[in-house]
Amino acid sequence: MVSRGWTQDELVTGVLAGDRRALARSISLVEDGEEGGAEIVRRIYPSTGRAASIGVTGPPGVGKSSLVSALVGHVRGLDRSVGVVSVDPSSPFTRGALLGDRIRLADHFLDPDVYIRSMGTRGHLGGLAEATLQALLLVDASGKDVVFLETVGTGQSEVEVIGIADVVLLVLMPGSGDAVQALKAGIMEIPDVIAVNKMDHPAAKTMLQEVRSIIALDPVRERRPAILLTEALRAEGVPELWDALEKRRAELDERGELEARRERNLSGEVEALAVARVRRLVREAMRDDVAVRALVEGVQRREVDPVTAVAAVVDAVTGERAP
Amino acid sequence: MVSRGWTQDELVTGVLAGDRRALARSISLVEDGEEGGAEIVRRIYPSTGRAASIGVTGPPGVGKSSLVSALVGHVRGLDRSVGVVSVDPSSPFTRGALLGDRIRLADHFLDPDVYIRSMGTRGHLGGLAEATLQALLLVDASGKDVVFLETVGTGQSEVEVIGIADVVLLVLMPGSGDAVQALKAGIMEIPDVIAVNKMDHPAAKTMLQEVRSIIALDPVRERRPAILLTEALRAEGVPELWDALEKRRAELDERGELEARRERNLSGEVEALAVARVRRLVREAMRDDVAVRALVEGVQRREVDPVTAVAAVVDAVTGERAP
Repeated sequence: MVSRGWTQDELVTGVLAGDRRALARSISLVEDGEEGGAEIVRRIYPSTGRAASIGVTGPPGVGKSSLVSALVGHVRGLDRSVGVVSVDPSSPFTRGALLGDRIRLADHFLDPDVYIRSMGTRGHLGGLAEATLQALLLVDASGKDVVFLETVGTGQSEVEVIGIADVVLLVLMPGSGDAVQALKAGIMEIPDVIAVNKMDHPAAKTMLQEVRSIIALDPVRERRPAILLTEALRAEGVPELWDALEKRRAELDERGELEARRERNLSGEVEALAVARVRRLVREAMRDDVAVRALVEGVQRREVDPVTAVAAVVDAVTGERAP
Repeated sequence: MVSRGWTQDELVTGVLAGDRRALARSISLVEDGEEGGAEIVRRIYPSTGRAASIGVTGPPGVGKSSLVSALVGHVRGLDRSVGVVSVDPSSPFTRGALLGDRIRLADHFLDPDVYIRSMGTRGHLGGLAEATLQALLLVDASGKDVVFLETVGTGQSEVEVIGIADVVLLVLMPGSGDAVQALKAGIMEIPDVIAVNKMDHPAAKTMLQEVRSIIALDPVRERRPAILLTEALRAEGVPELWDALEKRRAELDERGELEARRERNLSGEVEALAVARVRRLVREAMRDDVAVRALVEGVQRREVDPVTAVAAVVDAVTGERAP
């Protein structure tokens, strides 16, 4: 008996059979950090890797969720099943706020071949990233053909959840000046496809040109992302956007890069999650280790320098003792 | 003999006496991760905490460096000595590109009471953050009255170098829509003072109103930042900006919050630097530990689930061995 009337075997079998309730319950277990959740992921893991995963990122307010919603509609029209995992705290998926023109998201909630899940943003970022990866694996194992992973972020977030996706879509809108500058300065990673959303905006074409001119600087032509204009609320440009995402994924696959990228992503994810865990160990040492706390207080009184205290914290975490 | 003809004693004495060459050499030592550098910081640390430190952050391209340059000019006019430590990879301080209207930065380079240092951005972020903190401490100990710490960042960067400053200035410009959205969504931390730079821009006043309306939502009135219009290239609004920064720092000091904030900052910095170090240990384990590498390869072949591999990496770092 693992949880609320489900045995672990039932949850594993349920997830693999595409049962929504088993999937939802399993994701809740990993979200709560329950050991049983990790065990389920361990068991379903050999059945993952079938879904095409699309990471969707971009600054807050550009219309990521609306665009994902429109993409879900389009992909359903192609008779492919879809999952959405959202870790954007400003996303209506996460907020559960399905109002106004976002009401169409609610339609998707009723479609049995669409599974939408927002991840809680409370708790440690590390814990969230780990739960998000596990949620993605569970949705993948449940047989969804396509999984969208929606995250806010500009290439700098603590744990790059999006790094696990097969292809990455960056959503911008006219006025996303900061993001464009960040691309230009090399601070934000170049995505696979860029959508300039809100194409009706008078500055949309200017923005498109600006982004194109930045992208054109990349000497590796194959790496240059496709850039498209979209209007998510009317689903304009959405079929073209989907085609661009599929095309990029197919190209990567043909060149053998998709497999290499997946291997890199998985290894990167293991690293990110391990870092998140040792980060928690650092916090625990600073809170609970009496000797470490004394040193940190010494730093605050300008008696012990910070780097000496840092070394003591690291020693406490790694089990070393200073001589 | 520590380095290039300097003994460690000479470097320590030189830094404390405000000798620029000793300061530059010591910062290079910490930047290179030399043990001698850490030792110098350990020795000068009791003499730190005298400088007023101002963190300056904001999206790329808003004119942070020009504004810092104008502030340096203003503060020099008040006959106070100044240090600048820049960790913004897109900054002209960092790039050493002192062209066009930025030529005035070069004047500061010739002023003996101004010390400007850009930190290399190669290498691990963790190492950079540690070196930056040490550089800040060295500049502080060298007797500079005011130290500006310029960083790019939107409250999400891996190691928040800026977290060590007494007060934080966020620089925006009309078109910094992403940053404003991030403030609104609570993703970016509320700074002490906000400068809307490029005040001649037709949208500057609109931007000002928009930022004000976001700030007005904060129920804690004392925490609400001052918001000012500036035009860095003509130093317009710069005296007012400096006054706002000083006023905020004085308020914090009067309320006893400055001391509390510094204690929190130092403790936070110890934590961030410890995390950066254990992050390096994680990378080393993944690169060098044969058993860990075998598990990661198992993950890539979908045979070992990621969370099992993560646990093994953490065990390798903490010296635990799986039973």
